[in-house]
Amino acid sequence: MVEQASETILNNAANEDVGMLVVGDPFGATTHADFVLRAKQEGIPVKVIHNASIMNAIGCCGLQLYYFGETVSVVMWTDNWQPDSYYGRIKANRDRGLHTLCLLDIKTKEQSVENMMRGRSIYEPPRYMKCSEAAKQLIAISERMKAAGEEPAYTEDSKCVGLARVGWDSQKIVACTLKEMCEVDMGDPLHSLIIPGHLHPLEEDMLNTFGL
Amino acid sequence: MVEQASETILNNAANEDVGMLVVGDPFGATTHADFVLRAKQEGIPVKVIHNASIMNAIGCCGLQLYYFGETVSVVMWTDNWQPDSYYGRIKANRDRGLHTLCLLDIKTKEQSVENMMRGRSIYEPPRYMKCSEAAKQLIAISERMKAAGEEPAYTEDSKCVGLARVGWDSQKIVACTLKEMCEVDMGDPLHSLIIPGHLHPLEEDMLNTFGL
Repeated sequence: MVEQASETILNNAANEDVGMLVVGDPFGATTHADFVLRAKQEGIPVKVIHNASIMNAIGCCGLQLYYFGETVSVVMWTDNWQPDSYYGRIKANRDRGLHTLCLLDIKTKEQSVENMMRGRSIYEPPRYMKCSEAAKQLIAISERMKAAGEEPAYTEDSKCVGLARVGWDSQKIVACTLKEMCEVDMGDPLHSLIIPGHLHPLEEDMLNTFGL
Repeated sequence: MVEQASETILNNAANEDVGMLVVGDPFGATTHADFVLRAKQEGIPVKVIHNASIMNAIGCCGLQLYYFGETVSVVMWTDNWQPDSYYGRIKANRDRGLHTLCLLDIKTKEQSVENMMRGRSIYEPPRYMKCSEAAKQLIAISERMKAAGEEPAYTEDSKCVGLARVGWDSQKIVACTLKEMCEVDMGDPLHSLIIPGHLHPLEEDMLNTFGL
């Protein structure tokens, strides 16, 4: 992982050319911005070759990149930890008619509590949140809002767009209600989910080509 | 231009493989979404190869893509036409602490009124809006708001980030106040301008490396 090996990478870069390959665009993650900053501070020249990122490739579903508001991250819930802070950002986007890209949680290199306590470098199999899981969580949050007497920003009948393996030959896009998405098998990771805001006619036409 | 030749391209695509090269990611512009939609409606399979786009490459200035709100387009003013409708979107982003990417106007294949009236296919040299021009316009709009008794979303002393030729070897990034940007020569096109919202410490550190 870059976070752990950054010292080594930067030390070597003082003497020789070092390349770093990343998934997506290097500036999609804070980690790499931090890395570039440290290199600059140490006087190491950095050359970036940009790449497609999920932040722009999601345009393939037909929703215009122009009309996206702030991006949110949907984290995997556990029995004791069920945060919903991203709901406020979806609501703020919806209030302005903007679409929200929900990046779905990834758990790699996770250790069980037992293995962590015993200091064993044994990791759990990687887990990737699915569109169906995200849809269930989003509905649960809107139910909480309703229970609290608030008008929810969306309901289980609101339209959403699920995207899987964007850019791959096996790419899959489905536009349906959140309730329907709970039962959709989008296949292998990575998945992303969009909660659209106001739809323009061309956007509507494009989404219709991705119906169930 | 794609808009004029789309019939020809689609007709040929029925019989042979047709490739289309675009600048940036194909879904950065409505034109291409419309094109894909029409191909689909005619039963022509479309394969998209995504690419870096200014919508994600702007991350190179150190501002996190996560914290961008809606993107706006800044159009070239004329003596009689000085629209400022995008100001409201910058304000709405700033109110939520979000950054705004301002895409700057491009005029290619423009005809003078005289040439247009005489039906002459003579086009004006292409024009590309500069960061300095955009900064002047943005300041003029904030002055209008002040004159109307409104608290402007930003002033001439607000920080902005100018980016030119992103991804090229000659790429240039400058972080300074809007007032200072009016005098900055960013060099050849294309230029983009960012009005940052709330700055996180890492973002601040990165911007500091691009001072005047």
